[in-house]
Amino acid sequence: MTLPAPIAVDAMGGDRAPDEIVAGAERAAAELDLPVVLVGDPDRVRSSLEVLPASEVIAMDEDPGRGVRRKKDSSLVRAAEAVRDGRASAMVSAGNTGATWGAALLRMGRIKGVSRPAIATPLPRPGHDTPLVLLDAGANVDCQAEWLVQFAQMGAVFARDRYGLDAPRVGLLSIGEEPGKGDGLRKEAHALLDDPSWAERCGATFAGNVEGRDLMAPGLDVVVTDGFTGNVALKTLEGAMRSLVGAVLGAFDTDDATRAAGDVLMPALLPLYGQLDPDATGGAMLLGVDGVCIISHGSSSATAVVNACRVAAESVSSGLVDAVRGAVGTPA
Amino acid sequence: MTLPAPIAVDAMGGDRAPDEIVAGAERAAAELDLPVVLVGDPDRVRSSLEVLPASEVIAMDEDPGRGVRRKKDSSLVRAAEAVRDGRASAMVSAGNTGATWGAALLRMGRIKGVSRPAIATPLPRPGHDTPLVLLDAGANVDCQAEWLVQFAQMGAVFARDRYGLDAPRVGLLSIGEEPGKGDGLRKEAHALLDDPSWAERCGATFAGNVEGRDLMAPGLDVVVTDGFTGNVALKTLEGAMRSLVGAVLGAFDTDDATRAAGDVLMPALLPLYGQLDPDATGGAMLLGVDGVCIISHGSSSATAVVNACRVAAESVSSGLVDAVRGAVGTPA
Repeated sequence: MTLPAPIAVDAMGGDRAPDEIVAGAERAAAELDLPVVLVGDPDRVRSSLEVLPASEVIAMDEDPGRGVRRKKDSSLVRAAEAVRDGRASAMVSAGNTGATWGAALLRMGRIKGVSRPAIATPLPRPGHDTPLVLLDAGANVDCQAEWLVQFAQMGAVFARDRYGLDAPRVGLLSIGEEPGKGDGLRKEAHALLDDPSWAERCGATFAGNVEGRDLMAPGLDVVVTDGFTGNVALKTLEGAMRSLVGAVLGAFDTDDATRAAGDVLMPALLPLYGQLDPDATGGAMLLGVDGVCIISHGSSSATAVVNACRVAAESVSSGLVDAVRGAVGTPA
Repeated sequence: MTLPAPIAVDAMGGDRAPDEIVAGAERAAAELDLPVVLVGDPDRVRSSLEVLPASEVIAMDEDPGRGVRRKKDSSLVRAAEAVRDGRASAMVSAGNTGATWGAALLRMGRIKGVSRPAIATPLPRPGHDTPLVLLDAGANVDCQAEWLVQFAQMGAVFARDRYGLDAPRVGLLSIGEEPGKGDGLRKEAHALLDDPSWAERCGATFAGNVEGRDLMAPGLDVVVTDGFTGNVALKTLEGAMRSLVGAVLGAFDTDDATRAAGDVLMPALLPLYGQLDPDATGGAMLLGVDGVCIISHGSSSATAVVNACRVAAESVSSGLVDAVRGAVGTPA
């Protein structure tokens, strides 16, 4: 794929950094024929790929705000600067989520007119071809109703761009379908979202209030909420899936007969496993900053990095950032 | 079981009312040797049990506040009055959740000192003997930090009473383990919960901030949150479990070989199915009102009603309401 500049991969971010991240970046360059550079400490990052030097690392559990402010030579800050300066066309990190958000926000800046960038996380759904896009998945914990409208617009643009949906159906996460259900934020946001002008601007349809059980059900493409509720819902889903898969696999391991039956079932279960594998989605997209920024989960494998680079390159090629600008931003 | 007065079962509430509810009440009386009365329209409720007459029904999708205010002769309001007047020792309803909460609050009243009654929902966990108690599961959408401390106290008392736990571990649902993580409400609540005096009063331990993925994991007994977040988490869990179980059963149905393997596995999977069956838990407990009130889920079967009556009777016998009064309420 031809890009104006390489994808910058933060070599120092993630539980398995730098080795697994470097392996993923090298595979992305070779298998997808993509220009890729690594960002990190040249003494610790050994690779055939170019390494943009950065002497500091913001740790996974470090306070994001302080990390970004103090560590100006960190791999995250340098990666975001590379995008800002045009030396990279996108950044990918499996590091500290809050710090990735902060570095992108401070160095790339917001798209003019966007109040708050949000983290859009694709949630794989059993039996569905496309994931559900949930945003905000954790960046903005205390939200205003107007921000949720922008999340709806950005999420719809992302669903159109990424999954080729003509008219994404966008729901507002609440605790009942009626417009009057929910807390104060939800009631205010529902009233704003009920005005069709926002949806016309980005080719979306407002599906009204939806509930937690609708996240895995058919019929929706995007669900918007504040970053606190979104993060709770995302992690509740992850925990439920892990717990239930563990219990089912435990039942398979009861005795010789169930183990043999499990072996027969594995080929039928593998597509489901692949569908739910978080390494397959390419990670979350930070929407509303002036550049492509992918936030992969902390435990990302090399395969997750390959998929993140693929999504980053496709989003650069398709012009995702300009599409968000057109749907949400105000003219400069 | 000897009770001071019978259990009042709302015969008109629930998707399968009155027939399935009546069948459950009759089974509870016969199988558990419990005194049970039904509350509802005598023309529609045919039963060998006594029927306390109530001519109105608050529908499942009716506005709860309006329903409780206007329908003074509804089965829900009459059931709550029976508890208030000592003609019943507890009430059970599978009807409109908000209206059940409202009727209990208005007719039974709050325990003195309790700011807001909360809905405590037991969440079955694969591979665990005891459920996790989540509260508030939907009654109070906009919460103050002090209320969350009372939810923690009431949840701990409930876990001790219901599951015989000596020192329940209580977590605050947030989006990161560090005390500084979360929105404004969570930061304030964490500071209050970090003071050990509330926990000493009810024999609990504060486990700090927990995340959505911890709901199904070991190590916690009670998780407190506002009613909006709690309801989203509860329904997200339900949706995830249903979606994944459906996908696994779909894989079992791939071909003759997988169907045969599925038959071999079923006995090993049945205990898990039983563990996750919402009909088995007896429903949610409304904590903080001056009486025992069980809110069963809308799709309750007769078996769910039997289990709800059992939990109600045990909570009356054990003195749950006085235990909540002792841990939370102020002396009269």
